[in-house]
Amino acid sequence: MQDATLRKTIALIRGGNPQLESAAWSRLNSLTKPLGSLGTLEEIAAKYIAWREENSPAIAGKAVYVFAADHGIVEEGISAYPKDVTPQMVYNFLSGGAAINVLARQANAEVVVVDVGVDAELAEAPGLVRRKVRRGTRNFAREAAMSEEELHAALHVGIALADEAERQGRTLIALGEMGIGNTTSASAIAAMLGGVPAAQVTGRGTGLDAERCARKAEVIERALDLHFPQRAAVEPLELLRRVGGLEIAAIAGMVLGAAANRIAVAIDGFICTAGAAIACELAPEARAAIFAGHLSQEPGHRILLERMNLKPLLQLEMRLGEGTGAALAFHLIEAALRIYNEMATFESAGVSKAGC
Amino acid sequence: MQDATLRKTIALIRGGNPQLESAAWSRLNSLTKPLGSLGTLEEIAAKYIAWREENSPAIAGKAVYVFAADHGIVEEGISAYPKDVTPQMVYNFLSGGAAINVLARQANAEVVVVDVGVDAELAEAPGLVRRKVRRGTRNFAREAAMSEEELHAALHVGIALADEAERQGRTLIALGEMGIGNTTSASAIAAMLGGVPAAQVTGRGTGLDAERCARKAEVIERALDLHFPQRAAVEPLELLRRVGGLEIAAIAGMVLGAAANRIAVAIDGFICTAGAAIACELAPEARAAIFAGHLSQEPGHRILLERMNLKPLLQLEMRLGEGTGAALAFHLIEAALRIYNEMATFESAGVSKAGC
Repeated sequence: MQDATLRKTIALIRGGNPQLESAAWSRLNSLTKPLGSLGTLEEIAAKYIAWREENSPAIAGKAVYVFAADHGIVEEGISAYPKDVTPQMVYNFLSGGAAINVLARQANAEVVVVDVGVDAELAEAPGLVRRKVRRGTRNFAREAAMSEEELHAALHVGIALADEAERQGRTLIALGEMGIGNTTSASAIAAMLGGVPAAQVTGRGTGLDAERCARKAEVIERALDLHFPQRAAVEPLELLRRVGGLEIAAIAGMVLGAAANRIAVAIDGFICTAGAAIACELAPEARAAIFAGHLSQEPGHRILLERMNLKPLLQLEMRLGEGTGAALAFHLIEAALRIYNEMATFESAGVSKAGC
Repeated sequence: MQDATLRKTIALIRGGNPQLESAAWSRLNSLTKPLGSLGTLEEIAAKYIAWREENSPAIAGKAVYVFAADHGIVEEGISAYPKDVTPQMVYNFLSGGAAINVLARQANAEVVVVDVGVDAELAEAPGLVRRKVRRGTRNFAREAAMSEEELHAALHVGIALADEAERQGRTLIALGEMGIGNTTSASAIAAMLGGVPAAQVTGRGTGLDAERCARKAEVIERALDLHFPQRAAVEPLELLRRVGGLEIAAIAGMVLGAAANRIAVAIDGFICTAGAAIACELAPEARAAIFAGHLSQEPGHRILLERMNLKPLLQLEMRLGEGTGAALAFHLIEAALRIYNEMATFESAGVSKAGC
């Protein structure tokens, strides 16, 4: 069910450049430190260089894209917060008071808020990209969350923003989301991709107690029975269409679009990773573009990252979303590139090498 | 065996302010995010505020202190690098080419290099603090690493630098070290404080193979037999004097001096933590000043952090030292304080609170 835009985008994606990765390791090994002693920072540098295909890697035009949308599944009582909070938080993003604004300012990154499906009319505002596909998904406990047209429209929002980011000269972006109810969609996706029961990938979301968390898992399990009675391998776009969210689809599209444009992508927590996981199912080489910002407290996050074979850079017991973990990871990615660009070599500094 | 300076310093140390910590949590809980959803960042903010006793916490005059010294134990062949590398790396620090220089620049922090025991004459240079106690420790496989006078002189170096940092208005410092052979000292300290065999806390250091790593553990175990045949609880200063290093002692002194001056301290990896652990044995309330920058790959590091009940902020499989993990942690501590100072509250942003 891939349309022409999606097929064209996926066709452009290829993995990291192995020659540049190998050259990057040679340089890393020449720097004044014991071999490999900067651990994950060295891996970040090598991956970024292989991806960007630059010998002197630089970061330009950092931005965090926060995709907002509502979810019909909230009718089932699976969230601690009322649905009104989605537009309220969008206004908070636009006035600069949310956590992601604070962390983006620290990282010197722009915040771009994308309304891809908020169930409220949002007025034009600086920093707001209005690309509403529909006012929230349908309740996937009863029917498919999206039509095929809606799914593709949401994917295209992400693809188009990636193309625009490329024209703006961006080299590294972070993705995040806001949408009351969206951990329920992410859990449904994680259960299917991981081949595990819903209870294993369902967490407290924004703050459910144990009882409501169990109820949320039941809602998901019943929805999966409805949509995928055999639980057999499902086509990733069909999985996304039936139980996903408009922001999750837009994130999947933006990961694919960024990968097609060789922009590096820092992903955030559970929901954002669900979108990126769908992208990687469609185009496994997109993985070479992706840095997993952090490991969230949502139990399904680890399962998705393991399937994608990505190691989270931070483990700070966060579960906020918005792109907060991805924005924090900017500091580590920048540290890695500075190490690569700025450190002295054994030769240039006149330091003796290991004798054994 | 505490002298007057040390006793006076320890007497000034008291823990975090519980009233301010409680007020900090009230504010954190009023910010526009689900309760506790910023995880460790919130804990950092509350701890920093309780420590600094400031309602609007700020960071001023960041610096990384890198303590350099040599170790007589290198005679036993326990390091992958020759001893010459200690002064060579000091010159690298002074010319700005080492990893710690790069990461400190990124964090906008000054690098202060302290020669507390390098086995070479180092000329005066900007950024170098010359406080050599002696040209390296004695070989602790054969005799005590330091005399009582040398131990106290090294502790005083750290205490005096902390007093100076206070006069300079510094509120947050990072500590690091350089000294070929110093993981061997740190392993001996960790084995004694953790009550475990040397093999359990002995790692690859700067790059030993398995065979030389086993030999290093044997050297340590035999040295502990020599100094502490009963392995009974040892007075922490006597432990430090017999198997420690001059840089480890100076770090212990600087942690105590910082704690006495209510300066917050980001500690680095295994060796730095060994010094901080001795400080916490002498003054348990110093723990309230300390942020554990990262968890290194050295196996003894986790044992020391567990004994100190400190959670490492980063886990990046690093094992370089120099203060690199502590400098990276600056970003997270700053993120935590920005969140605290800059985020909107539910009330100010007009966002609905959780309904359950």
